[in-house]
Amino acid sequence: MSQVLPEGISSDAFFACADAIVLAAKDLAALGWTPATSSNFSMRLDDAHAAITISGRDKGKLSRADIMLIDLSGNAVGTDARPSAETALHTQVYRYWPEMQVVLHTHSRTQSVASRLFATQGVIRLEGWELQKAITGFHTHESVLEIPVFPNTQHMPELVAQVDAWLDAGKPLHAYLIDGHGIYTWGRTMAETRRHLEALEFLLACELDLRRLSA
Amino acid sequence: MSQVLPEGISSDAFFACADAIVLAAKDLAALGWTPATSSNFSMRLDDAHAAITISGRDKGKLSRADIMLIDLSGNAVGTDARPSAETALHTQVYRYWPEMQVVLHTHSRTQSVASRLFATQGVIRLEGWELQKAITGFHTHESVLEIPVFPNTQHMPELVAQVDAWLDAGKPLHAYLIDGHGIYTWGRTMAETRRHLEALEFLLACELDLRRLSA
Amino acid sequence: MSQVLPEGISSDAFFACADAIVLAAKDLAALGWTPATSSNFSMRLDDAHAAITISGRDKGKLSRADIMLIDLSGNAVGTDARPSAETALHTQVYRYWPEMQVVLHTHSRTQSVASRLFATQGVIRLEGWELQKAITGFHTHESVLEIPVFPNTQHMPELVAQVDAWLDAGKPLHAYLIDGHGIYTWGRTMAETRRHLEALEFLLACELDLRRLSA
Amino acid sequence: MSQVLPEGISSDAFFACADAIVLAAKDLAALGWTPATSSNFSMRLDDAHAAITISGRDKGKLSRADIMLIDLSGNAVGTDARPSAETALHTQVYRYWPEMQVVLHTHSRTQSVASRLFATQGVIRLEGWELQKAITGFHTHESVLEIPVFPNTQHMPELVAQVDAWLDAGKPLHAYLIDGHGIYTWGRTMAETRRHLEALEFLLACELDLRRLSA
Repeated sequence: MSQVLPEGISSDAFFACADAIVLAAKDLAALGWTPATSSNFSMRLDDAHAAITISGRDKGKLSRADIMLIDLSGNAVGTDARPSAETALHTQVYRYWPEMQVVLHTHSRTQSVASRLFATQGVIRLEGWELQKAITGFHTHESVLEIPVFPNTQHMPELVAQVDAWLDAGKPLHAYLIDGHGIYTWGRTMAETRRHLEALEFLLACELDLRRLSA
Repeated sequence: MSQVLPEGISSDAFFACADAIVLAAKDLAALGWTPATSSNFSMRLDDAHAAITISGRDKGKLSRADIMLIDLSGNAVGTDARPSAETALHTQVYRYWPEMQVVLHTHSRTQSVASRLFATQGVIRLEGWELQKAITGFHTHESVLEIPVFPNTQHMPELVAQVDAWLDAGKPLHAYLIDGHGIYTWGRTMAETRRHLEALEFLLACELDLRRLSA
Repeated sequence: MSQVLPEGISSDAFFACADAIVLAAKDLAALGWTPATSSNFSMRLDDAHAAITISGRDKGKLSRADIMLIDLSGNAVGTDARPSAETALHTQVYRYWPEMQVVLHTHSRTQSVASRLFATQGVIRLEGWELQKAITGFHTHESVLEIPVFPNTQHMPELVAQVDAWLDAGKPLHAYLIDGHGIYTWGRTMAETRRHLEALEFLLACELDLRRLSA
Repeated sequence: MSQVLPEGISSDAFFACADAIVLAAKDLAALGWTPATSSNFSMRLDDAHAAITISGRDKGKLSRADIMLIDLSGNAVGTDARPSAETALHTQVYRYWPEMQVVLHTHSRTQSVASRLFATQGVIRLEGWELQKAITGFHTHESVLEIPVFPNTQHMPELVAQVDAWLDAGKPLHAYLIDGHGIYTWGRTMAETRRHLEALEFLLACELDLRRLSA
């Protein structure tokens, strides 16, 4: 393999992360949430490193060779491969929350359409759904789950700054959408993060259905 | 296994129920009706016991170890596992109808959206569909099938009381929705209950389509 | 097997039909077009007999044992099994067109919803779609394909009479819908009939989409 | 095999193309984009030849025997098989762009419905979607991707002339729709062409969703 691991990261640890990413990517691709090589996935290895998908690969057909090592500034470590263009959004999560271990970014049709519809408002407000309880920390449908929608840009530092501004304002953040693009969410384990992603896709789809039906 | 069976319940009987639940859960999860560890399933073992899914498990990946024994008051029997939060809604069915053997609760997008749309009316009235005949006791499309929609609450006794009130009013009950949540239905065999669930999902989806198209 | 074959029908011939029906049913069930044990399928054996699905079976799980022999008046032959309730609609096709070998009746959501929407008009008029060419005898999108929608009834002779009336009026008939129910179509081979069914489902779904989008 | 290869085309080269087409067709059929034997696929072999699907085959069940050789005028080479009716639209691409190696034509419901809705305007204008970057040459969502919609005709030279007119006007062309029919797109490799097709289907579906939801 072209990936050289630094001292302190065993190949067992790296492969465990890579395998978990490959499996998640395969499942999410089968749902149609990663069209045309879009989407990217990462998993924390330690305080200073994460494994992340290499840019431009078909997410339904990943193998260990499609996963690379980065530091938490987003630089490639021990490889010439180019990490996903949106790496900075992953490392931001790992730097901000030491307990977060996984970041998943997908690009489903529901996510893309919802982001366009709610772009002007800048936020999607979810309430009254039992499935809000799937987000860690939520214990009742009588709660409000806010998902911000940030304007899209090809310049990553602007996106990072938008996320920072939301956090600096002291607002809770469990996931965000980017306009015309997809969703980012995270968690303390792969299972928790996948549960978050699955619940958010479901809730966004329900909101779009309600809007269609209540018109 | 950590599940200890009381005298009078053979492990063959328990495993037969567990396997039937695991298989149904796998099929229903593949349809996307159990997002983010939602949904729960049970099967009666005898006059005083049922097998039910343990809380919080991924319904697409259940095994025998994810099924536990309860009594018909909803208490765990022979295990420290925690049964589904909505266990009281299952045991209510088994206590009310001695002939009912299976209760299935799913949480599809169609079910969730329909429950929100019809919450104010408190009932969905189905008529004119050939598939109403899939509900035991219905022999023609020239019939009316009413599915009540109860307000959601995290306090189970309130939900149980709502179902009781409907039954006490002498109204037929084949299934019910909970607002922002999913559906409950039951039957005398697993096959009958799955047929009920499949027909109800289909009929709710048709009603939503008609509403979209008749606007 | 409980099916006894009359002289002149070999078990090879019967099994060939049964296997073709089982395979088609499995594929159509996987598409969700046969919910809750609905739908029925048949195949002609000779001038006087056809093989047809036994009533009430799960169409995704058929085996040879779920297929029975009937005569073209719809009577069971060599078996105590009960043929599908709508057998008379199958045998009508075989009696009317000697060249027709296969009848498929499914019950998809699109078919059910379209039948309700167009019930008052009594017909769905398709034109301008390239896929009309998938119906035998159509060579251009510049044609009109009319699918009648008959009122539903549990009394089969009424349905048979409605189909007869359409044919007696000299109107072409490639398929029909029954209100709140599903579609019937047929062909000279299983491949042709499945192509017809697939094309009709596609065209009905496109018409519903156009209606939703042109509102 | 009934396909005789001319000097200069090895069976290895021909089979490599045939296998790539068979695999793509199987995947696209599984998505439901090739209903009722519609759709056709080709791959360039050299400056003067391409492999293309034989007319009328079920695209989910192709084998090498369903692929034939043509020259770039669309004539069958070394076989009596009849190439797809729309062969002229494939060879036009290979003649116009020497670098293009693959042409995929599918017929999804989204493609058919979008073509009808935008037929009067004659073009679908996509902007603001991150997935526009999946089309080679696009590097930002702040771009405009125009997909022309040409009137349908059973007379291929008219369609060829419409495409020529668009190109002669100096307008960029990455794909086109035919009214009531499907989409054509192409690329320098099978992977690139499939990425184009997947992205275009996604973008058209998003546009239809937005239109439904913004009404």
